[in-house]
Amino acid sequence: MMGVTATYFIHDKQHNLIKKAEGIALGLTVGSWTDLPLLEQQQLKKYKGTIISIEELEPDEQADAYLGKPVTRGLVKIHYPSLNFSPDLPAILTTVFGKLSMDGEIKLVDVTFSDDILAAFPGPKFGIDGIRTLVNVHDRPLLMSIFKGVLGRDLSFLKEQLKEQALGGVDLVKDDEILFDNPLTPFTKRITAGKEVLQEIYETQGTKTLYAVNLSGRTFDLREKAKRAVEAGADVLLFNVFAYGLDVLQSLAEDKDITIPIMAHPAVSGALTSSEFYGISTPLLLGKLLRLCGADFSLFPSPYGSVALNRKDALQIAQFLKEPATYKQTFPVPSAGIHPGLVPLLISDFGLDSIINAGGGVHGHPDGAAAGGRSFRAAIDATLQGIPLSQYKDDALQKALYLWGNPSEEVKI
Amino acid sequence: MMGVTATYFIHDKQHNLIKKAEGIALGLTVGSWTDLPLLEQQQLKKYKGTIISIEELEPDEQADAYLGKPVTRGLVKIHYPSLNFSPDLPAILTTVFGKLSMDGEIKLVDVTFSDDILAAFPGPKFGIDGIRTLVNVHDRPLLMSIFKGVLGRDLSFLKEQLKEQALGGVDLVKDDEILFDNPLTPFTKRITAGKEVLQEIYETQGTKTLYAVNLSGRTFDLREKAKRAVEAGADVLLFNVFAYGLDVLQSLAEDKDITIPIMAHPAVSGALTSSEFYGISTPLLLGKLLRLCGADFSLFPSPYGSVALNRKDALQIAQFLKEPATYKQTFPVPSAGIHPGLVPLLISDFGLDSIINAGGGVHGHPDGAAAGGRSFRAAIDATLQGIPLSQYKDDALQKALYLWGNPSEEVKI
Ligand SMILES: [Mg+2]
Ligand SMILES: [Mg+2]
Repeated sequence: MMGVTATYFIHDKQHNLIKKAEGIALGLTVGSWTDLPLLEQQQLKKYKGTIISIEELEPDEQADAYLGKPVTRGLVKIHYPSLNFSPDLPAILTTVFGKLSMDGEIKLVDVTFSDDILAAFPGPKFGIDGIRTLVNVHDRPLLMSIFKGVLGRDLSFLKEQLKEQALGGVDLVKDDEILFDNPLTPFTKRITAGKEVLQEIYETQGTKTLYAVNLSGRTFDLREKAKRAVEAGADVLLFNVFAYGLDVLQSLAEDKDITIPIMAHPAVSGALTSSEFYGISTPLLLGKLLRLCGADFSLFPSPYGSVALNRKDALQIAQFLKEPATYKQTFPVPSAGIHPGLVPLLISDFGLDSIINAGGGVHGHPDGAAAGGRSFRAAIDATLQGIPLSQYKDDALQKALYLWGNPSEEVKI
Repeated sequence: MMGVTATYFIHDKQHNLIKKAEGIALGLTVGSWTDLPLLEQQQLKKYKGTIISIEELEPDEQADAYLGKPVTRGLVKIHYPSLNFSPDLPAILTTVFGKLSMDGEIKLVDVTFSDDILAAFPGPKFGIDGIRTLVNVHDRPLLMSIFKGVLGRDLSFLKEQLKEQALGGVDLVKDDEILFDNPLTPFTKRITAGKEVLQEIYETQGTKTLYAVNLSGRTFDLREKAKRAVEAGADVLLFNVFAYGLDVLQSLAEDKDITIPIMAHPAVSGALTSSEFYGISTPLLLGKLLRLCGADFSLFPSPYGSVALNRKDALQIAQFLKEPATYKQTFPVPSAGIHPGLVPLLISDFGLDSIINAGGGVHGHPDGAAAGGRSFRAAIDATLQGIPLSQYKDDALQKALYLWGNPSEEVKI
């Protein structure tokens, strides 16, 4: 069957998942059915939604208490024929979760696509392999750090901070996602200044660092602005996808003149994903759909840091980003509150093909950001060699463990 | 103070709203503060977020039960200086609710803008007055109906349905929001066929009806497609804003060549608004922000129908759409499950400057869609004359009341 199959997690106050499922399958496609003449039923059959499965789940006391009455919980899968929509995400989202998103306790937890629809989506332009080639690192997780406290600062401040971070051996440095076009550190000047710093380090140290610059502004200016970034020598584009729309990401990823990777930031996505009752599941949004639309990197809250995501969802994101598919893989970047003591847990969860991403854990190192970067690289090396962090001889690492702790040897999951 | 002030509804497990507010005001602007040298504090002061107010609310047992422990509830207002972001909604949303959207039980319930920022937004191109001029109706709520069961149908079916609806005296007919580009009823052909039908009715009956055609497809094609629609004679564009992005709506509204009104459909918005703990409030999204970005109409669930919104939120949407401002007003369109018996309640809630919008309530009338339209027009006339619906002499109306009931005389709110 050509089409999409949506999975909904439903808390049904009417205790009638079959009725609910039938209402969705018809209401979001041909409308009425049993009152149609047989001839029209025949004509419209190929447009009709189909119930694929209904799985009732155990009751949940906490949900019942909150909703004020016992409810039936269940997973319902509905298939929508390709004929019903154009092969773009706005049309697909409107079909499977348009008015339904307002219709009680119903959360969109998965969408699967038939090959005819998948063919309309690009996937990542670079993917994990392409990015590894760019940084010339093939045997370990990459390390990324984040500019810190950059609002109100000028280019020389940014250049100094970039240099410190790069000297610590990070593979990528990303803009703060709240740094927009501004007179102190304009977009193109950030790119050229960053390029200069990183080129100098490459020539003197031999280490390659990429800088992800924040692509921001009005939607209809983004493609031209991205091309200007490429011309100015940008390495990577950071993009607040959910402040715009997944279809915008897709268009940037598809554009042949935008010849650099795109890093998807999850800003604003929590507004869609945080509730257990409503919205769109985190793995679907930050995993499957970001990859489909062409993100080369997906940042998401790790299970361990300051802004935490539950571990099951975080692992499912990474699985969606990396599972075998017709597209390239997207690099998982578990983020927020990451310090070196978490590195073994992150590598155990997300594998070699993941990125360790730290802001405060780099900049807050007692010996500065360069030492912060080195402490992470040491933690990665130790983990790959199977050496407990506490026993790894690296001064920067040991200072970091002393400051932030070492959950990798304290916590058993 | 130039900037935006965001209001957050917070359920704080740490019982420390002051600390939470300070964390937001700093974390989303300059980062650290007390550890900065005085000179840097001076330099950065104008970029720093400011706590405007912290209001603790009564505890809520249901929320406590759901969250598994007693929490402190409160409203926190934070001001972000204009200097920190470019004057576009993606930057503003990322600033005030980017990573914060993922940070626990926090909902964005309002944003106020200083005049320098408001000046960057267009507001509606037509507004209530402009639309009244287009349909030449100035003294009553407008009446809109919706195509029904159009997937898999051809142009002749749509033309027949449009004719029936228009004959019933509706002022507007809107596409189903799930009708996308398709070979049976292509976009431009829908426009020209619709025009033909409505022109004929205008010439024979003297009544004017506008057709809102669904603008869909890829984001970067929308502007050209909208202009083609205008050239083909389209009356109004229906637009699934939340399947794209508010900034896209804004660009369409700003475009001088798109010389027809835009009708914002709330599809997918429930994914952002439905939770009490997370996301963005319905009045902010479907009221204030849609008007700011230029929607001429805002559809939202009425408090009475099949997909219901609480009355307080629905009224607040309408207030945001119509309150005095530097922009034109947006027409409130309370929708979903509307039948003639609800008309007095809708007019009492939303006023003369609102639109009665019905799908099943028009098409499901025992004597057909034209009678359905007439029954609504009769209900509107009765209400404006202060006559209880049950006593208004109109056969179509009385049949509708018999079928769907008459809550306007049964319910006291
Ligand atoms: Mg940040
Ligand atoms: Mg509809």
